[in-house]
Amino acid sequence: MRTAFTDLVGVDHPLAGFNRSPAVVVEVSRAGGLGVLGATMYTPEELDAQLGWIEEQLQGRPYGVDLLVPAAVTHTATEELVAGLREQIPREHWRFVEGLMTKYGIPPLSEGDVLDRTGRIDASLETNTDERLVTGLLDVTFSHRPALVASALGTPPPAMLERARAHGVPVAALVGKRSHAERQLAAGVDLLVAQGTEGGGHTGSVATMVLTPEVAEIAGPVPVLAAGGIATGRQLAAALALGAAGGWAGSVWLSSVEDLASDAIKSKLLAAGSSDTVISTTRTGKAARQLRSAWIDEWDAPGAPATLPLPLQPMLVREAWERIDVAAGRGDPAAQELESFFVGQVVGSFRQLRPTAEIVRDIVEGCELRLRELTTLVAPGQPVPGRADP
Amino acid sequence: MRTAFTDLVGVDHPLAGFNRSPAVVVEVSRAGGLGVLGATMYTPEELDAQLGWIEEQLQGRPYGVDLLVPAAVTHTATEELVAGLREQIPREHWRFVEGLMTKYGIPPLSEGDVLDRTGRIDASLETNTDERLVTGLLDVTFSHRPALVASALGTPPPAMLERARAHGVPVAALVGKRSHAERQLAAGVDLLVAQGTEGGGHTGSVATMVLTPEVAEIAGPVPVLAAGGIATGRQLAAALALGAAGGWAGSVWLSSVEDLASDAIKSKLLAAGSSDTVISTTRTGKAARQLRSAWIDEWDAPGAPATLPLPLQPMLVREAWERIDVAAGRGDPAAQELESFFVGQVVGSFRQLRPTAEIVRDIVEGCELRLRELTTLVAPGQPVPGRADP
Repeated sequence: MRTAFTDLVGVDHPLAGFNRSPAVVVEVSRAGGLGVLGATMYTPEELDAQLGWIEEQLQGRPYGVDLLVPAAVTHTATEELVAGLREQIPREHWRFVEGLMTKYGIPPLSEGDVLDRTGRIDASLETNTDERLVTGLLDVTFSHRPALVASALGTPPPAMLERARAHGVPVAALVGKRSHAERQLAAGVDLLVAQGTEGGGHTGSVATMVLTPEVAEIAGPVPVLAAGGIATGRQLAAALALGAAGGWAGSVWLSSVEDLASDAIKSKLLAAGSSDTVISTTRTGKAARQLRSAWIDEWDAPGAPATLPLPLQPMLVREAWERIDVAAGRGDPAAQELESFFVGQVVGSFRQLRPTAEIVRDIVEGCELRLRELTTLVAPGQPVPGRADP
Repeated sequence: MRTAFTDLVGVDHPLAGFNRSPAVVVEVSRAGGLGVLGATMYTPEELDAQLGWIEEQLQGRPYGVDLLVPAAVTHTATEELVAGLREQIPREHWRFVEGLMTKYGIPPLSEGDVLDRTGRIDASLETNTDERLVTGLLDVTFSHRPALVASALGTPPPAMLERARAHGVPVAALVGKRSHAERQLAAGVDLLVAQGTEGGGHTGSVATMVLTPEVAEIAGPVPVLAAGGIATGRQLAAALALGAAGGWAGSVWLSSVEDLASDAIKSKLLAAGSSDTVISTTRTGKAARQLRSAWIDEWDAPGAPATLPLPLQPMLVREAWERIDVAAGRGDPAAQELESFFVGQVVGSFRQLRPTAEIVRDIVEGCELRLRELTTLVAPGQPVPGRADP
C-alpha cells in the first residue's frame, strides 16, 4: 500500500510503530513499517547507543525518533532550580503519596532494585527544559540517520526544525485538536500525527473518527497519520478511509513479546477491557490516558488533593512509581493493584503476547483484506459484506 | 451499497438517520437511508399522528422509530409519586438553579410561550417508567408499519421484543460498551448500534474506532451500525472498514434546514468546533454529550452542587431549560450564553444549513467515492492516495 507517508519516509506499509523499546522499533521497521523510538527518557549518551544499535540491526532500513523537547528552552536545570521547584509541592501532597505507600505496604527502594527508566515519561518531564540536555539529544539524533524526527508534545522548537531541514530529515508533530494542527502547519512540519482521545498517554478529547478528517482537511499536501484506536487491520483501513496516509500505532506494541514493560504490567493489560482506561493527570500533571487502577481511584477519592501542574506532579510521584513498579514486579498483590501504564482503549483487544513482526503482519494483511472486501460494496452484483467476520 | 443492514430493513444505503423531527425522518428515508424518529417525547396520541404523517409522506418506504422505554416498568407515575420524587430534590439545588436564572436574567415562562417539547429528552426521563404511557407508545408503534424499532437506553423490555417479533419488526438497541452488547445479544435484538463516545446525547467512554470492531466481533450474524462520528462519506467508509454494516448518524441532521431546533441553537452549532462539546450529567442526570455553554461552566464552578441522579436532575432543570430556550429564541444574549443542545463532536464539521436530502446524498456519494479511492491502495501501479483531498 503506497501512500504519501510511505513515500515520505521510504517504507513499504503505511504504519508507524511508536515504542520506547529499541527491539520493537527494529522489528516494526524490519517488517516494513516505520519503527519510531520514544526517546523521551534517554541521556544523549544513552540515545547515541540505542540509535547505533538500531541502525546496526536495520542495515539501512528507515526508522524514526520521537523526542520530547519543549518549544522554548528557557533555562538550565540546575540543582538549585530543581530544589526550588520541589519546595513548591505542598506538604499535604507529600503526605498523601507517602500515605498511599503506607496503606498499600509498598517498601522503599533498596540498592539492588532495577528500575525501568524507559517507562518514566513522568520523570523526563521534570528535566526536559534543560538546554544542555535538549541540545545534546538533537546533536545525537542528527549524528545518526533517522528517516523521521517527531516532537511528542507541542510545536517542535526552531532548532529542531532547522537542523532537520539541514539534514534532510522530515519532522512530524502530534496534534490533538484543529488549532494544534494549524500551529504545526504554520511552523512547517512535514507530517501530522492526529491523535484521537482513545489513544494512550498524553491525549486530547476529540476522537480519531472526528479528528483525522478534520486535520486532513486543513493539511493540504502535508500527510496525516491517524493515531489512537489503531491496533488491527480494520482500524488501519478505517484510518485510510478517514483521509489519513497511514496509522500511528502506540499501545498495540505493549502486547508484543519485545516490549520492555514488566510482566506485572503486561498481565494487567492482557486482562483489561476497552472501558478500563481513564484520562488522568495523576501521573504527569497533564491529561494522559492510562489503565485504571487503585492509584487512580485513590486520587479520585474524597479527601485526595488536586493534582499539581507540570513539572511538580511528576516530581511528586516519581519515586512512588518506582517503588510500585519494583514491588509489582516482585509479585506484591497490593502493588499490582496500584500498577498502571499509559495505554489506549485498544487494550481491550489484547489477547496474548505476540512477536512484533506478527503484529505488523496482521495489521497490514488485515487492512489489505478489508480494503478488498470493501471494494465489493461499490462493485454491483457482489456478495453482501458488512456482517461480522473477524 | 448493499450490506446486512440494508437487507434487514430494505433500504438502498447503509445509513440510518436518527432525529426527533418528522420532516428529517421523511427526507432521510426518501433519499434512500432509514429515517428513525426519536419518539422519546411524544404521548401515544402525538406519536400516532406523527407516524401517520410520516407514512403518508413515504408511501411505503421504510422508516424506524426509537423509543425510550425502560427494561422494567415497575409503577404507574401518579401525581403523588411525582410529588414524592420532587421532595427528594435538596433545597440547595433549587436555589442554585433559580440563582442561575436570576444571574442571567432569564424571565419566567408566560402564557404565550411556545415550547419545543420534542427537544425535552430530559423531561421524558421523568415519566418514562409510567406503565400506561409505555404500553400506549408500543400499541401505537405496532399499529403502524415501521421497518425498525429501536430502544434508546438499555435492554428493550420483553413486551417490546415480543410484540416486535409478532409484527415481524426487527429491534435495534444502542450499546456503549462490550458488556451492553453481550446483554442485548442475549436478549435477542436484531441490530446493534454501537455508539462511540464522540456521539451526541447519552454516550459512553469508548470511541467508535475501538467500540465498533469490538461489538462486531461478538455480534456473529447480527449486523452492527457505527454511531458517533458519522457525518461525512469518509466517516461512513471508516465505519464500514471497522466491520459495521452501516452508519447511524444523529448529530449531522442538526445542520439540516428541516431539523426542529431553534435558530438560536443552530447558530451556536454552526459556530462550534469539534472541541466544543462536553459530556455532562447536568441536563438529564446521566452522562450526555452536549455543546459546552455557560450552563455547563456554572455547574462546573466551585460551590455548584453535584448533579442528581435520574429522574431528579431532569425534574430540577426542566423548567429552567424551557425558560432558557424561550429567551434564547427571542435573541436574549445571556440566554444564548447558557443555550446548549445534545450534539456530538462532528459539530465541528457543520458549515451551513443544508437540506436533509443533500446531506444524505453527500454522505452516500462521498462514501462510495472514498471506497473507490481506497481500492487503488490494493491495486498496484495506481496513483498515490492518502493525501488530503477533501
